[in-house]
Amino acid sequence: MTDDSIGAFRDELIDSGLVIDAGVEGLYGRTLAYEEIVSGIIALTTRTGAGDGAMAVHFPPLIPRWLLERTDYLKSFPDLTGSVHTFGGDDKRHARLLALVDGGHDWVEVLEPAEVVLRPAACHPVYPLCTGGPLPTQGRRFEVQGWCFRHEPSADPARMLCFRMHEFVYVGDPDGAGAHSELWLKRGAEMFESMGLDVDVVVANDPFFGRAGKFLAANQLDDALKLEFVSPVSSTETRTAIGSVNRHQDHFGLTFGIESADGEVAHSACFAVGVDRTALALLKRHGLDPGRWPAEVRARLWP
Amino acid sequence: MTDDSIGAFRDELIDSGLVIDAGVEGLYGRTLAYEEIVSGIIALTTRTGAGDGAMAVHFPPLIPRWLLERTDYLKSFPDLTGSVHTFGGDDKRHARLLALVDGGHDWVEVLEPAEVVLRPAACHPVYPLCTGGPLPTQGRRFEVQGWCFRHEPSADPARMLCFRMHEFVYVGDPDGAGAHSELWLKRGAEMFESMGLDVDVVVANDPFFGRAGKFLAANQLDDALKLEFVSPVSSTETRTAIGSVNRHQDHFGLTFGIESADGEVAHSACFAVGVDRTALALLKRHGLDPGRWPAEVRARLWP
Repeated sequence: MTDDSIGAFRDELIDSGLVIDAGVEGLYGRTLAYEEIVSGIIALTTRTGAGDGAMAVHFPPLIPRWLLERTDYLKSFPDLTGSVHTFGGDDKRHARLLALVDGGHDWVEVLEPAEVVLRPAACHPVYPLCTGGPLPTQGRRFEVQGWCFRHEPSADPARMLCFRMHEFVYVGDPDGAGAHSELWLKRGAEMFESMGLDVDVVVANDPFFGRAGKFLAANQLDDALKLEFVSPVSSTETRTAIGSVNRHQDHFGLTFGIESADGEVAHSACFAVGVDRTALALLKRHGLDPGRWPAEVRARLWP
Repeated sequence: MTDDSIGAFRDELIDSGLVIDAGVEGLYGRTLAYEEIVSGIIALTTRTGAGDGAMAVHFPPLIPRWLLERTDYLKSFPDLTGSVHTFGGDDKRHARLLALVDGGHDWVEVLEPAEVVLRPAACHPVYPLCTGGPLPTQGRRFEVQGWCFRHEPSADPARMLCFRMHEFVYVGDPDGAGAHSELWLKRGAEMFESMGLDVDVVVANDPFFGRAGKFLAANQLDDALKLEFVSPVSSTETRTAIGSVNRHQDHFGLTFGIESADGEVAHSACFAVGVDRTALALLKRHGLDPGRWPAEVRARLWP
């Protein structure tokens, strides 16, 4: 994969009128034709998980600052974080803010942290909903979707600053978490293949930060707790994750104090679809005109 | 309107299972029943503007920092702004970050500004799309929607930190902008009334910041450039804006260097629906069970 081929795909997406350069690297507007692909993927994912009794929830693009602080995210991926800051000053400080902006200077020195941060993964807000007593015997299931943020500005359209993620989450006991993972490994592969995508399942190799991150990355590979569905997205020569199955073990159970039905620390697992990446993978695979995609793919997305 | 009645409505919304307390004031999760109301409002708004030839675009919750700097937003509403900051340090600085978090301290001192900020209004990203030469004779029309952010934490569910806005924007000459405003004043009122809402049209009285803001607010009232559709939302005793018609005159034309077909500075205008506030107004008006709303309202939202 060369930067040239990635840049070429981005240019093709923009020239075809599917996405719009929003004025900074990694940020894109979406036109109706692109959004119809997104709606099709979301609806297919919903249908694939229907019947499991998951509670469907949507959360906004922000989460409480305390929620991010309680997860390991700042340890593992500080460089991807988006913290929100606002202005809480008086008239005098406001004059200083405007003078900085007018002078073309960095104006963030007059800001203060807000009580929210951008959401790095769709499922984070659901774990605090599971506290306050043991879970039911069957555990709890959520279908959760929304906008996520990761600060990795890039010419590669597969690395958007803002993108949508759609997840099916289980919180309960270890057996239930294992069954959820197994089920969605199978269902996920079938779902992606039913859209005509060429998908491999591989052990994830996340970009953990810094020196300590090397050990975290090695552990992730050894434990195989996260498996990714990888497919050509921006280039036919390499593959990018378009979905994943994550076995969290007792990580969120411990972090948020969630109890399974038998009073043990809860285990959890989730299946996640990178909705925008899946849309790009479809455009790479079937071409930039969805009207000319294979009939069976169109029937799956827009039945 | 008392704080008690507003807090009571928030509690009713949460108890009824329509929205979820997301852990910080002004931030809510949405369940499927609530999202179906939102989808109905968005679809109705789209149908109301269909046939005008607007280009439908979706933008993510963030805009470039340079875009916010070029508008008057930091002058008028600095306190509502959301600036995004991220971590760009090395291992040593990362250790400092983690020590601050572990110690329960403010950890934002180790961050740096990212090239993006949260979007305060849905339409901001469309104006830069109109540069690069004179507009066509008929101007340009956009239908734009997405998540917006305003930092006004409150117990009032009508003042969400994150909410969705759906707009129809015109960019062209003064006559076209005037016609767009007139058309949407009429269409907007009819649309809200067709959902059974009790709506008044009033001159807007935005919360401009600080001492200079008093003059801006007085000018806004005098010029009547922004008209709001107000309806009971969190309380039956006062009204909150659920939509607006904004005549920008040449503000965005000058700011972004947009030329009308005859080479003059372009004028613009927009109609905006506060989608979440409209959903709340419907719940206030017709009750917390959409299944029991009047048949004609249900038919408008879910034809």
